This record gives sequence, structure tokens and C-alpha cells, in this order.
Amino acid sequence: MKRVGILTSGGDCQGLNAAIRGVAKALYEKWGSEVDIYGIQDGYRGLIEGSYRRMKQEDFSGILTLGGTILGTSRQPFKMMRVIGEDNVDKVKAMKSNFKKMKLDCLVILGGNGTHKTANLLSEEGLPVVSLPKTIDNDVWGTEMTFGFHSAVEIATNVLDCIHTTATSHGRVFIVEIMGHKVGWLPLYAGIAGGADVILLPEIPYKLESIVKTLEQRNKAGKRFSILAVAEGALSQKEAKLSKKEFKAARAEMKYPSISYALAAEIEEKTGQEIRVTVPGHFQRGGSPCAYDRVLSTRFGTAAAQLIYEQNYGNMVALQGGSIVPVPLSEVAGKLKTVPPACEEVRSARDLGISFGD
Amino acid sequence: MKRVGILTSGGDCQGLNAAIRGVAKALYEKWGSEVDIYGIQDGYRGLIEGSYRRMKQEDFSGILTLGGTILGTSRQPFKMMRVIGEDNVDKVKAMKSNFKKMKLDCLVILGGNGTHKTANLLSEEGLPVVSLPKTIDNDVWGTEMTFGFHSAVEIATNVLDCIHTTATSHGRVFIVEIMGHKVGWLPLYAGIAGGADVILLPEIPYKLESIVKTLEQRNKAGKRFSILAVAEGALSQKEAKLSKKEFKAARAEMKYPSISYALAAEIEEKTGQEIRVTVPGHFQRGGSPCAYDRVLSTRFGTAAAQLIYEQNYGNMVALQGGSIVPVPLSEVAGKLKTVPPACEEVRSARDLGISFGD
Amino acid sequence: MKRVGILTSGGDCQGLNAAIRGVAKALYEKWGSEVDIYGIQDGYRGLIEGSYRRMKQEDFSGILTLGGTILGTSRQPFKMMRVIGEDNVDKVKAMKSNFKKMKLDCLVILGGNGTHKTANLLSEEGLPVVSLPKTIDNDVWGTEMTFGFHSAVEIATNVLDCIHTTATSHGRVFIVEIMGHKVGWLPLYAGIAGGADVILLPEIPYKLESIVKTLEQRNKAGKRFSILAVAEGALSQKEAKLSKKEFKAARAEMKYPSISYALAAEIEEKTGQEIRVTVPGHFQRGGSPCAYDRVLSTRFGTAAAQLIYEQNYGNMVALQGGSIVPVPLSEVAGKLKTVPPACEEVRSARDLGISFGD
Amino acid sequence: MKRVGILTSGGDCQGLNAAIRGVAKALYEKWGSEVDIYGIQDGYRGLIEGSYRRMKQEDFSGILTLGGTILGTSRQPFKMMRVIGEDNVDKVKAMKSNFKKMKLDCLVILGGNGTHKTANLLSEEGLPVVSLPKTIDNDVWGTEMTFGFHSAVEIATNVLDCIHTTATSHGRVFIVEIMGHKVGWLPLYAGIAGGADVILLPEIPYKLESIVKTLEQRNKAGKRFSILAVAEGALSQKEAKLSKKEFKAARAEMKYPSISYALAAEIEEKTGQEIRVTVPGHFQRGGSPCAYDRVLSTRFGTAAAQLIYEQNYGNMVALQGGSIVPVPLSEVAGKLKTVPPACEEVRSARDLGISFGD
Repeated sequence: MKRVGILTSGGDCQGLNAAIRGVAKALYEKWGSEVDIYGIQDGYRGLIEGSYRRMKQEDFSGILTLGGTILGTSRQPFKMMRVIGEDNVDKVKAMKSNFKKMKLDCLVILGGNGTHKTANLLSEEGLPVVSLPKTIDNDVWGTEMTFGFHSAVEIATNVLDCIHTTATSHGRVFIVEIMGHKVGWLPLYAGIAGGADVILLPEIPYKLESIVKTLEQRNKAGKRFSILAVAEGALSQKEAKLSKKEFKAARAEMKYPSISYALAAEIEEKTGQEIRVTVPGHFQRGGSPCAYDRVLSTRFGTAAAQLIYEQNYGNMVALQGGSIVPVPLSEVAGKLKTVPPACEEVRSARDLGISFGD
Repeated sequence: MKRVGILTSGGDCQGLNAAIRGVAKALYEKWGSEVDIYGIQDGYRGLIEGSYRRMKQEDFSGILTLGGTILGTSRQPFKMMRVIGEDNVDKVKAMKSNFKKMKLDCLVILGGNGTHKTANLLSEEGLPVVSLPKTIDNDVWGTEMTFGFHSAVEIATNVLDCIHTTATSHGRVFIVEIMGHKVGWLPLYAGIAGGADVILLPEIPYKLESIVKTLEQRNKAGKRFSILAVAEGALSQKEAKLSKKEFKAARAEMKYPSISYALAAEIEEKTGQEIRVTVPGHFQRGGSPCAYDRVLSTRFGTAAAQLIYEQNYGNMVALQGGSIVPVPLSEVAGKLKTVPPACEEVRSARDLGISFGD
Repeated sequence: MKRVGILTSGGDCQGLNAAIRGVAKALYEKWGSEVDIYGIQDGYRGLIEGSYRRMKQEDFSGILTLGGTILGTSRQPFKMMRVIGEDNVDKVKAMKSNFKKMKLDCLVILGGNGTHKTANLLSEEGLPVVSLPKTIDNDVWGTEMTFGFHSAVEIATNVLDCIHTTATSHGRVFIVEIMGHKVGWLPLYAGIAGGADVILLPEIPYKLESIVKTLEQRNKAGKRFSILAVAEGALSQKEAKLSKKEFKAARAEMKYPSISYALAAEIEEKTGQEIRVTVPGHFQRGGSPCAYDRVLSTRFGTAAAQLIYEQNYGNMVALQGGSIVPVPLSEVAGKLKTVPPACEEVRSARDLGISFGD
Repeated sequence: MKRVGILTSGGDCQGLNAAIRGVAKALYEKWGSEVDIYGIQDGYRGLIEGSYRRMKQEDFSGILTLGGTILGTSRQPFKMMRVIGEDNVDKVKAMKSNFKKMKLDCLVILGGNGTHKTANLLSEEGLPVVSLPKTIDNDVWGTEMTFGFHSAVEIATNVLDCIHTTATSHGRVFIVEIMGHKVGWLPLYAGIAGGADVILLPEIPYKLESIVKTLEQRNKAGKRFSILAVAEGALSQKEAKLSKKEFKAARAEMKYPSISYALAAEIEEKTGQEIRVTVPGHFQRGGSPCAYDRVLSTRFGTAAAQLIYEQNYGNMVALQGGSIVPVPLSEVAGKLKTVPPACEEVRSARDLGISFGD
């Protein structure tokens, strides 16, 4: 009897259940009643606390289209792992101990960047691990695409579409804040797909003057409205020169709930034009996965099952050149796949006349 | 030759173009080349400033599905009309004067509550007016339904659906702020359709303790998450007792951008539980109208054309008992169709176990 | 302990689960652990065969957005009830007998026209029945609206929207066949909402010449394309004069799978123009209910629970004048709410220039 | 002054307007008022007949989200080119002649496989051509992805989702016929994303016995329903052995409008189980492009503009390894990118337990 543990960690996203289903269905196809799957509750926390349940085959039916994760998830353990102090060593011990108590043959881990650091740590500690890259940010190193990304792009684009009709009707300037603290793939793609006039990314710090100039040029050209797609993590060129500590201090003093509100106030002051702000927030990561993500999640899932079958551990399944390949966790952990400021998508957007505020 | 002026005023919503198309197509069907339609730019502002253009038949093609308004809109004239001072008298004069200059036979006005006050004023001043009730708030007196409402409910419900999957996965409490400053039909309907656990409306002031109790009961019952659908205009029972002036002062001191953030902070303080806030904002009024609104807008539009044909002026077209009927503008102006706290939808929600925080 | 049986019968539609949830949650709110709900499997068949299960409270969680019915459904018993022969008498006996064996206090029945005939029969036989009107056809007598209808309109309208872009690009004539065998509310509403040029309904038999004339006029006016929204049950004026038997015979000889293909062939012969046919079929009744239907289903559900609480049996919950009211089953059974050819929606469509082919 | 002609040919799909906009906006950004763009009407037909118009900058505004093609399209010229007889030589002459009369510097062509054959022919005849790969079939040689594909997958998946809820509720077997005459990428992706139990592709001929066996196994396993995603061009292993002529003859004798109906009848005969058929048809290629397609279309469009800028003609823009690259038309023309029966997506589906009926 094979015993496989599975957990989802970090912020949830679309396609998690589709991927879980892919792993499970492929394992049952391969091993039939010779495999038992254990769902570990709420991510690493469940592994630390020994909270899990034996899954039944029917638990994985009908979840292809379901948003979120049937296993639950949590974020804290990620933070915990960043600084490995005494206490965390104990937590790693607890995880290893529970892995043994559960008599698992391997551990399947679905998560983003933080999750993969811990997955690598567990792998280095000797646990047989296979992981899958999930995140709406598409910022996991080693894979061309994560699942969740295109579903979130679809939602953020739909918000931009809706804002378009109201902006045109009223002749207004709108800022739509799109998820992406450190990495801007989501605002970049949604900004292009949603026809934004200005896109601000964490990777391309902006100058206020440049944004103002773009808005003025559009006014002069008789364009009644402008739409700015702004990453949560957008920052000015001045801010980009600050040390991490100084930056944090500056932002802590900011009296607005997010950069979009602060930026709106600055633009209003410069131009006298009223700016509206929309912050769709968490709903970008919820709901049913788009078809693209369902296929990708399924492919990742069945590929992960194949790695388990081959006892090929210590890898993340990744999309490279259109194929699913294993990538060593040690290559993935601790790296971030950011938007190269001169990448093709950015150049295409610039060719179209979209400003990046730089 | 008949000459018909048409304008859209106030915040835009879904179905405006569908209604405009309904009026225009029905007029052309009735009168063919014997009618000229003049599009007045940006609402009453265009009438005041004499900004308009002669429309062509093809201008009304392909706009059934289009969000926003092809005529543009503005909000200021509404504010202006609230207190009729010297200056506003001049503006009314300007509107009457431009109406004459344009040699119009009548004026078609699409708008919400503010718009209808002005429409009634113009009607009382002798202009032949026909109006259509648009607003996502469904708060226009005299009609069972306004167009825009069900499209906005659909969008807000979709936000709640997406928040549901992330709330379940993380075991979190979420506040979703839904449009509705004075009237809560939109948060009420979206709250029921989106499976909210708590719905807060302007018409039913809340007690913080009551909300906290509901959340604690859900915790005890093992429910991992809770979702609050909160109207922009939600207010506490204490605030409900303040005078208008005191209320404004209290809100001006509030250090949060909206009631949802303030409420989240209060609940966090009381329960120690983290609360997430999502504010979808203006995108609730944008995008393509849902099928329901397209049919309703079309019916309102053709009914308005019929009133023009019959020279039956001074009315708003309204839905009553499932039929489109004319309602005198004098009956509509200045009234607000609020949510009766004991109405059937509220009772149905209570029967279901939804709390209104009272 | 109260014991409530619940079943869904006839073709499924959107909102069934939302309505089931409404009934159940309201019953649990009223009676807590003092009520047991029994889910009867696959409609009346389950009642005949004694196939049911005791439901748990959690069975009704998370189903608000779910298409179909968690109880299963079947159609045969409806046919069976049409002619009550010896065998059917036995089946009614079996239902009554199982009702007793299950020690039910009452029976909640969700269904359309056929279902309500049987519900009335059971009521006349002495069973305490409460029913809810479901169907995408909106043809249940006694209620202004059934749940499922607006969700189906939304889907059919979306099909028409998509066909529009391809029809415009290619300059083609398209027939979209929309569900509705005997009653045309769905093709009527979808036709208006989807901007059809011709709408054919069972209630308004068409003349081929009239359709051809409309298409030729559009050609002359330089309109590159035309879209016909055709009810499954559309029929020509000649066919309308046939006896039921003659009509069946004529249709049996028709070499096309549905009226749309036959009509396309006839129009092609007359005009020489190629006609494309699209038959979306059953997918019009599937998927998640729209917000409108979720609210209506919920209101019907809680109102049905209230009737059970009051032991007010023998009724269907219905929407009348915007309120939910009980209507005696005897008034509902055996009647069909068809589209009156001179109803307001038809007139509005005609005012817009839409042809009904008559 | 640069003069650029642009045409769309073959069946329309989502993203055509987004791509046209990408080309145009990038050309205007590069050359400003130094470039004139000529829209050629209805594909190659417009080039043959000399039907075109000078476009204005505003013609390309607001079309990012619009389905279809603002230039119109036609299919006949493709057929015409298959056998180059005397008449066609004249048509090629006409195209070259009109190209000269229009004083064009180059020709931008958006289309699928047939279109690219002609594009290559024109290129070989000396016309400066740049082309873009559009099609919902994703079967253009030389590019990993065509625009239109993922939008169509999204629609077909949504149909499968809706059919799922009705199939589950009724315990039925459904066939959903998905576009794809010669190539099965669309039914393959939609089948995986929509949770189909059986997928039939033109590239993997089926055995009836195998399908029947799968259905029987599902019945035995207590699964109440089954869904078959069947390509328009699905064929049996027997048919696969026929010559082209024999195959055509066999299909001509088939008394059903499409393979799905014929297959349904065969399965019904073998199993006694009723099978329902749904044929969504052309609506799979209509409506607004999904976000993925908008970004891809835009990237293709700006890359095509860059090739024009560099006077790098005779190429199609293609996606390879995630980058947009030029591929010589001579390499693309006449080839079809079919589904390799052992490709990763097929293997992933098999791992999941999906049957391909072989």
C-alpha cells in the first residue's frame, strides 16, 4: 500500500482543486486500491500539528471547476520559515515526525514562492517531496507558467473592461489596483488585455511627471478618459532608491490604504483632475478556474503523479517550452521570476503607445 | 419633421445604450425619415452649454450590448439643482433657451433620482419631457424596477462568489463593500444571491455587538469563514440617532476610506480575528447589461417612443405589475424608494439565518 | 419530530439547488433539530420505488451556486400520469404507501407543468403537498415567474451575442434554435436581448413569405446579416391549421432533426442565400443560476418552508405582483402560461422593427 | 507616405480585431501621420474586386474586446486557390493589379491554413506580405499558438460545464460536438477542461466497442452519467482505413446531420441507453476574446508592425518558445499542425482515466 500526503500552502488561487484532482485521479488510475491519499489540513500547519484525514476517491470528484482548495491553506508557516530560529527547528522536527507517524511514502505540496522554500527545506531534510507551482502572480522560478495566473488575468481584465465603459461615459481618469506586490505579470497582462493607457509595475519604477505628461497628452488629443492599471507594489523612482528600511518607513507614514490612493492624490494635485480608484482585491484569486488553468493544473497534476510513480522526488513540475518537466527544488527555492523591464510583452505594450510611467 | 432631443444624466449604468437604442429604433419605425434625433452631450451640461449633435440611424446600431452611454453623462447639474439659487435659475434659462434654439419637439431624459428632480423642474417650466428610470440602486420612486440594477447585482454576486472560495480555503472573515449610499437594494439582493452571512443596509442600522455575536456563533458551529455584504451607506444604530450634521462630522473624522474599513477595525478589536476588506467600487456599474436589463431597457425605450408619438409628456415610463406605464414626473421627483426593513426579501433572508446586524 | 420529504421532478434547470437550500435552511432555522428532511431520489420515481435518504444539514451547504439538482430527477412519471390507467393507479398507491412508510408530515415538490399535475393529483389523494415552480420555459400557470427562466435567457442571449459577431463578419444569415416546445417566453426574451431580427414562437405561427420578405428588405437596406431566433416549437401558419394528428404525421416525415434545419432549407430554396443553423440545446438549462434566479429560488424556498410551518398544504408558491403568495394546486394543474400574441413584450419587439414572421 | 493594406480571410474568430488594432496602433506610433492604412473588404475577395477603404485612426479604437472582424471576411478564395486553374490565375492577376493600383507598400493578412496558402502564393508572386495566424483550431504550422483558440476552448468548456449539471441530475449520457474538422486541439483541450469522460478526435480514430465498454464500466462503477466530447471530424477506425473518396461516399450516405447524431444512434443501439446530442456550432468562434487571446493578438499585431517597419516580408509572426518570431510563409503553407496521438496532453488525459475510444 502506497501512502501519499498532499497539502496546499500560501494564498489560495484558481486551479488548486483541479491540480489536486489531477494528482489523485492519476494515482488511483495507476495503483487503484493500492494507494491511500491523506489530505493534510491548512497547509504546513496541518503537518506541524498532525491534522489530516484519509481521503476517499469521491472526495476528488466534481472539484475540477471549484475555486479555492478543499484541503484548506494557511500563510503563517511561510513567514515562520524565513528566519529559522529555535522554534522553527522544532516545527520542522514536528513536520518530519508527523510524516513518519502518518507512514507516508511521499508528500505532494502545492504552493507559490514561500511554499517552495519550505518544500526545498523539507526535501533537504530527507523527505520525499513533489511540488506544483500555483500562484496568480506567475512568479515561481523555473516554470513558464503557474496555474491561477490566467484566471486572475481574466478577472482583472473584466474589471478593466467594466471601468472602461464608465470612464468613457463620464470622461474620467481611473486607477485600477491589480494584485502583485513584488512581481507585475498580472497587472502587465491585465493592463494589455484591458486596454489600459498606463501600466505601473514593481519592476519599472515610475516618475509622477511622466504619468502626468501622458494624461495631459491624452487630454490634448481629445481622449475623454484614461485608465491606469497599477500594481499593488508599484513604486516611484525616488522610492526605488531607498533602502528596504527607509522604504518601509516611508510607506508606513503614507496615510492612504494603498499606493493607488496615494498616487491618485498626487495626480489630482498636479492636474486638478479628479481620479477614481478601484481596488478589486482578493476576488482576483477566487472563483472557478478558466479553461486554460484547468488544463494546466491537470497536466501538472498527472505529471506529479508520474514522478511519484517513478519515485523521482525533490522536484517541482514545471512548464518549459510547452512541456511539463521536473525541476529540482533546490533550483527553484528562494528565487523570484520578475518581469524583465525589456521583455517582449513590455515592448509590445510600448509599441502600442502604453506608458509605463518611466 | 419631428425633432427629439435625448440626454443621459447622473452616474452611468448598464442598459443606458440599450434604452437609447429602444427609443431611437422605435421612433424611426414610427416616423422613418420624418424624425431627427439630437444627442445632447454629457447630460444637462450639454443642454446648458448647447453641446449636441444630430444622430444618424447607424449611431444606434450595435449598442444594445454596450456598457456606458454613447451620449456621455455628467453629475454636477444634479448637485446644482438641489439648491436653486440665482445662478441655477440662469442655468434653467439656458436649458430652455437651447431647447428652443434646437427647435426640439420634446426631450427624452434617462437618469436616476437627481436627474428626475431636474426633469420634473424642466417639465414644470413647460418643456415636453419623457423620462426613463436608470440606476443600479433601483431606488427610483414609482417603478418596481430600474434598468442597471440586475446587471450590478450580477457583478456584485460574482465578487461574493469569488470571495467565498478564498474565504473557505483560508477560514477567513471578509467584508465586501457593495454600492448603495442611501438605499440597500443592491447589497440586499447581492447578499442573498452571493450567500452572505451578514448583510448591512442603510435602512437597517447595525449594532456592533450583534455582528460580533453572529461571527462567534458561526465559529462555535465550526463554520470556518464568514462573509459580510456591507452597503457603502451602512451605519450603526448610534450613528442613526445623530443629526445629519453630527453624522457628517463623525464620518469626516473617520480615518478610514470607507465604512467597511472602519467596521473591520472595530470587529478585529472585539474578536481578535483578522478581517479582510474588498471594495469592488465603480466596476459594479460598468460592462455589458445582462439579458434582463436589455429587455427591460428595450421595453422602457419603446414605451417612451410611444409616449412621444402620443405627445403624452411630463411622465416617466415605469414598471408596475409587470407592465410599462407612464407615471407623472411630479409623483416621482424628490422621493426615494428605500428598502422597507420588513419587506419580503429581508424576511426571506432572515428566515434563511442571515443576520442584518440589528 | 417533523419529517419533510422533498423531490425534484421533470427536466432540471438552474436554481433547483438554491430552492432546495432555501426550503431546508428555513426549516432548520424554524425547528432546529426537531425536523428531519428526506431527499427522495430522482423525482416521483423515488417515491414510487421507495428510494430516499435522510439528509444532513451540511448536504445543503455550498449548493446555492450549483446547477442541476442534488436529489436527481426523472421525466417518465410525468408521461405516466397523463393517462391514468390501471398501472398508474398502482403507482399512485405506491407513492401514498411510501409516503406513509416514511412517516412524512408533508411533501415538497419542485417541478414544472407535468410535475404540478401529479402534485395536484397527490394533493387530491390526501397527501399534504407544497410545490415550487421551476422551469426555463416560464410557462407555469399562476406565477409571474419561474426560477430557471432568467438563467436560460442569459445563456441563449450569450449564444446570440456570439453569433452576432460571426454573422456580421461573414455577412451571413443565422438561425439560432432556442428551447421552447409549446411556449415561447425563452426565445422571445432571448431574441429581444440578443438583438434578433426575426423571432419565431409557437404562439405566433409564421408565413415563409413574410420571413423571406424581411430578409430581402434587410439586404436592400445594406444590412449584411440577419439573425433568426427560432423556438424549437415554431410552426408555420399552414401547420397551425392541421389537427394534432396531422401535425405529428407531417413532422414525422420531416427529414431534418428539427424545425430550424427544415426552415433553413426552405429559406435557402427561396432566396438562394446560405443559412447556418446553431442548436445550443440542453446547455441552456445547465450551469450556475444567475443572481436573479438565486434570489427568486431562495424566496420561493423560504416561503414554502413557511407554508409547511403553517401546515398550509395543497399550494404552489408563486410570484404575483412582486410578492410570493400561495396558489392552490388545483388552479395551477393542467394549465399552460403561453405568450399572448399581443403582449407588451411582443409589441415592444415589433415597435423596434423585429419581425415575428406573421 | 507608407501605405499598408490589411485583410482578414477565412472563418472569423475571437481576437481578429485585437490583432488588427495591434498592427494599426503600432504603425501609427512608429510613423504617425506618415502611414495610411487601407482596409480591404471581405478578405481576398476585396483584393480581387478592388473593394477597400482608407481607415482612420479612430476606426481602431474600442475594438480590442470586439468579436469578429471590422474588415469582413470570406471563405471562397481559399477554395479557389486549392486548384489553380485558368480562372484562378486571373484572380491572382487581379489581386496583384489591385495591390499596384492601391500603391500599397505591403499587405497584412490575418487568417488560418487556407489563408496562408494564398498568402504564400502572393508572396511568391512578389507581393510584400506579413501574416498573422488566427484560428480557433490552433492548427497553423510553425506557431505554438494561434489567437482564437483559447477563447473557443473557454466557450466549449462552458458548454461542457452546463451539460455536466444536467447530465448528473438526470443520470444521462451526453455527446457534445465540438468544432474541429481535421484537427482536434479544441475538443482535446475543452474535453480535459470540461471533465469529459470520452474524447474523440480526428487524429485518434475510435472503435465503437471501446466507447461502449467505457460507458458500461462507468455504469458498473455507479457513475450515473457520462459525457463525450466529440470532434466534428471524429471518425471510426473502419472509416480511417477508407480512401478519401470512399470516406466521402460513406459520409454522404449518413442520414444524420453530423457524426455525433450517427454515433449516438449506434451507441443507443448497442447499449439501449438514451443518448442526448448538443451541437453548439458557430457560437464557439464568436464573442469577445478572452484575456489570453487579447494579449497574444496584441503581441502578434505589434510584431507584425515591426516586420513592416523593417521591411522584413514573406513571413508569418509565430509564437515559439514563448517568444514572437518571424517564420517564412513557405515553411507554413500547406501544412497542418495536428494533435500527435502520443502528445503530452493526450497522455495526461489518459492518465486521468479519460478514454479516447481507441
